Amino acid sequence: MNEHPGFSHPAEAQILARIAPAIQERARAVKMMVFDVDGVLTDGSLWYGEHGESLKRFNALDGHGLRLMREQGIRVAWVTGRESTITARRAAELGVAPIMQGVRDKAQALETLAQGAGLTLSELGYMGDDNIDLAALQRVAFAASVPNAPFYISQVAHWVSTREGGAGAVRECCDLILAAQGRLAACFNTSPSGLDGALQ
Amino acid sequence: MNEHPGFSHPAEAQILARIAPAIQERARAVKMMVFDVDGVLTDGSLWYGEHGESLKRFNALDGHGLRLMREQGIRVAWVTGRESTITARRAAELGVAPIMQGVRDKAQALETLAQGAGLTLSELGYMGDDNIDLAALQRVAFAASVPNAPFYISQVAHWVSTREGGAGAVRECCDLILAAQGRLAACFNTSPSGLDGALQ
Amino acid sequence: MNEHPGFSHPAEAQILARIAPAIQERARAVKMMVFDVDGVLTDGSLWYGEHGESLKRFNALDGHGLRLMREQGIRVAWVTGRESTITARRAAELGVAPIMQGVRDKAQALETLAQGAGLTLSELGYMGDDNIDLAALQRVAFAASVPNAPFYISQVAHWVSTREGGAGAVRECCDLILAAQGRLAACFNTSPSGLDGALQ
Amino acid sequence: MNEHPGFSHPAEAQILARIAPAIQERARAVKMMVFDVDGVLTDGSLWYGEHGESLKRFNALDGHGLRLMREQGIRVAWVTGRESTITARRAAELGVAPIMQGVRDKAQALETLAQGAGLTLSELGYMGDDNIDLAALQRVAFAASVPNAPFYISQVAHWVSTREGGAGAVRECCDLILAAQGRLAACFNTSPSGLDGALQ
Repeated sequence: MNEHPGFSHPAEAQILARIAPAIQERARAVKMMVFDVDGVLTDGSLWYGEHGESLKRFNALDGHGLRLMREQGIRVAWVTGRESTITARRAAELGVAPIMQGVRDKAQALETLAQGAGLTLSELGYMGDDNIDLAALQRVAFAASVPNAPFYISQVAHWVSTREGGAGAVRECCDLILAAQGRLAACFNTSPSGLDGALQ
Repeated sequence: MNEHPGFSHPAEAQILARIAPAIQERARAVKMMVFDVDGVLTDGSLWYGEHGESLKRFNALDGHGLRLMREQGIRVAWVTGRESTITARRAAELGVAPIMQGVRDKAQALETLAQGAGLTLSELGYMGDDNIDLAALQRVAFAASVPNAPFYISQVAHWVSTREGGAGAVRECCDLILAAQGRLAACFNTSPSGLDGALQ
Repeated sequence: MNEHPGFSHPAEAQILARIAPAIQERARAVKMMVFDVDGVLTDGSLWYGEHGESLKRFNALDGHGLRLMREQGIRVAWVTGRESTITARRAAELGVAPIMQGVRDKAQALETLAQGAGLTLSELGYMGDDNIDLAALQRVAFAASVPNAPFYISQVAHWVSTREGGAGAVRECCDLILAAQGRLAACFNTSPSGLDGALQ
Repeated sequence: MNEHPGFSHPAEAQILARIAPAIQERARAVKMMVFDVDGVLTDGSLWYGEHGESLKRFNALDGHGLRLMREQGIRVAWVTGRESTITARRAAELGVAPIMQGVRDKAQALETLAQGAGLTLSELGYMGDDNIDLAALQRVAFAASVPNAPFYISQVAHWVSTREGGAGAVRECCDLILAAQGRLAACFNTSPSGLDGALQ
C-alpha cells in the first residue's frame, strides 16, 4: 500500500473539477468499495448457450482500475445475486477478494463485508443497478450507479457514472475515488517496476 | 401471488407520469403478457458458429422484470418463430412457461395461449418486432414494440419502449404494466425473504 | 414466386416517401441483389478464439428480409473476401445461393454471378463496405453501402442504409427494393400458410 | 513495397482536409506504427468463460488497414500488457510481426522494437488507451488514442480517432498515415492481383 503521494497529477484536478464537493467528500470516506457484477462490471448481458450462461463480457479499463484501487490500499469486493464460475474466474485473475455470489440480501452482505474488514457502513461504497441493490445503496457512505440502471434505481445514488456498465463505469468510479483521496497521481508511475505494468 | 399493495412507491408515479392514460388503461387490462424472443428479449443478433446458432444474449434487467411480473400474478409467455434449445434453457431458468417455439402464426398462438389460461385476447398483451408479429399486435389489448423494429411494425403498437430489445426493453414493459396495475411498489420489498433476492 | 400484388400497403408508401425517385428507379431494376458479408450482414466484428474465427453475429431482421426477397422472385447472393464455414452455414439456413467466398476480385465475381443467372450488371445490385468492394459498387445498377463503411466507400454508393451493418442494414435494403418494385405489400400476408411464418 | 504512387485519389485529399498540418507531418514521419490490443484493436471487452478469456472481437476494417500499411512498406507491430493465444492467432493471420505480449513497460518495448528495426522513436507511432500506454505515447513521433480511452490518456495524444477501439479506430489511423504519406491512392488498385483482394 502506497502512502499519500503528496503531489498531484493533472488528471486528479481534471476529474475533481467535474464532481460536486459533497460527492468528493463521500468518495474520500471509502475504505472498501463493493461492486455488483451484472449491469455494473458488465452491461447486463447474459450470454446463454445450450447449457446456460457461457460467457460474460468484462472490460480491461475496469480491471486496471480495480487493481489501482487495491494497490492504493482501498479494499475491493464484489457482491452478486447470480452464481457464476466465470465471475469467480475473473475475480481471481484480478485478485479481487472477497466476492459473494448468490446473495439474496445485499444490504446484509455489505454488513458482513464491513464486519469482516473491521469497518462500518460509513466507510463503504457500493455500486449497483437493480431493485436488489436499492437497500444497499441507501445505507453506504458512497452510493454509485450506472446510466443503464432503471432510473428509479440510479436516482437514489449519490453519483452515476457517465459510461455504461461494462464499458468503463467501474473504472470511472475507481478514478473518482482515487482522485478524491489524492491517490490517483501515484497511479501514473511508469517505471518498469510500477503497478502500471500489470494491465488487466 | 401478492395482493394489490394498497400503497404506492415513488417509481410508480414517476413511470406513469410519462405514459398516456389510454396506454395505462390498456396495460391495466393485461393478465398475460406474451413476448417475442429475437429482437425483443435480444437485440435480434444471431450468434452463429460452425454448427449454427450457438449463443443468445439475454439481459439481467429483463429477467428480473419477468420474475416480478410472475410474482405479482401476471402470467408471462414467450412465442417465437425460431427454435432454439438456448431459448428453452433461459425460459426454464426464469420459470417462464409456457413458451412456444417454431410458431408460424403468432396470432393463432396467442389464441391458443389465451384459451389455455381461460383468458380472452382482451386480457393479453404482446411485444414483437417483425412482420410475423403484426397480426398478433393488432389483436391484443396491449401491443408493445421496440425502437429496433422496422418502423412499419412499431408504428402499429400502442407503446414502444425507450430501450432497445435485449437492452432492457422487456424490463421497461414489465415496469409499465406493474405500475399501471399498482403492483410495482410490492417489488421494492427488500427483506431477505423478499422476491428481490432472486436476481435473474 | 408471387405476382405483383396489384395493391399497396401503407409501409410501401412510407418507405418510398423517404427515397429519391432516381434511387427508386435503380432499385426497381434489381433482379439479383448481392451482399458482402463482413460489415454488411455483420458489423464487421471478427470473433476470434484460440483456433481463429469462431463466431459471427448475424441479424434476425436481415434474415427475414432476404427470405422475403427470394419469395418475391428477387435473387440473392453473397460474395465475401474471407472464407468461413459459419457464413456457409447461415446462408444454407436462409436458402441463400449462390455464395462465393475467398473472392479477390468482387467486380469479376459479380460478372460471374450475372452470367450464371442470365442477367447483366444493369440488373444487379451490390451492397459493400470496403476498398475491395469499390469496383463492384461502381458497376452495378444499384450500389448500396452502410454507415459503418469508410466514408470514401459509402460516398460512391447510390444509397446508404440508416442502420449499421449487422443491425438491420440488409433488411432496410431488402425493404427498399421490395417497396420500389411494389412487392412489399405481399410480405404482410399473415395467413398461416404465408411466408411470414418462416422467421429467420 | 510500393513506391510513392505519384498521383492522388480523392479519398486522400478528403482525409487530409480534416487533419491539422502538424498532425499530418507527424504521421508522415511514421516508419513503424505500433498498436496496443485491448481498447484499440478491440473495444476493451474481455470475454470470459469458465476457463478465462475465451474470445476477442477484432474488426475486419482494421485488418484490411493493417494489411494496406504493410503492403505500402510501413511496419506494423502490436504491444500488449496481457497475454493471449487469441491475439497471437489474429496477428499471425494478418501477417503482423513482431507482437510483444505480457509487456509491463511499453516505452521500453517501443525502444526494443525501434532498435530491432534500425529505427529511432522519432520514426515510430503508437496508439494506446490506458495508463500503461502513457509514457509510450509521450515519446513517439505520432501518438494516437481512441475516444473510449480515459480522457486523461487521450488528451496527451496528438490525434484521437473518431471511431472507437474495435469499431474501426485502427483503420482510421492507418488511412491517416497512408494519406499523409501519399500512399493511400495505391490502395485502390482493384485489379485481381491487387492487394485489395486479400480482405482480412
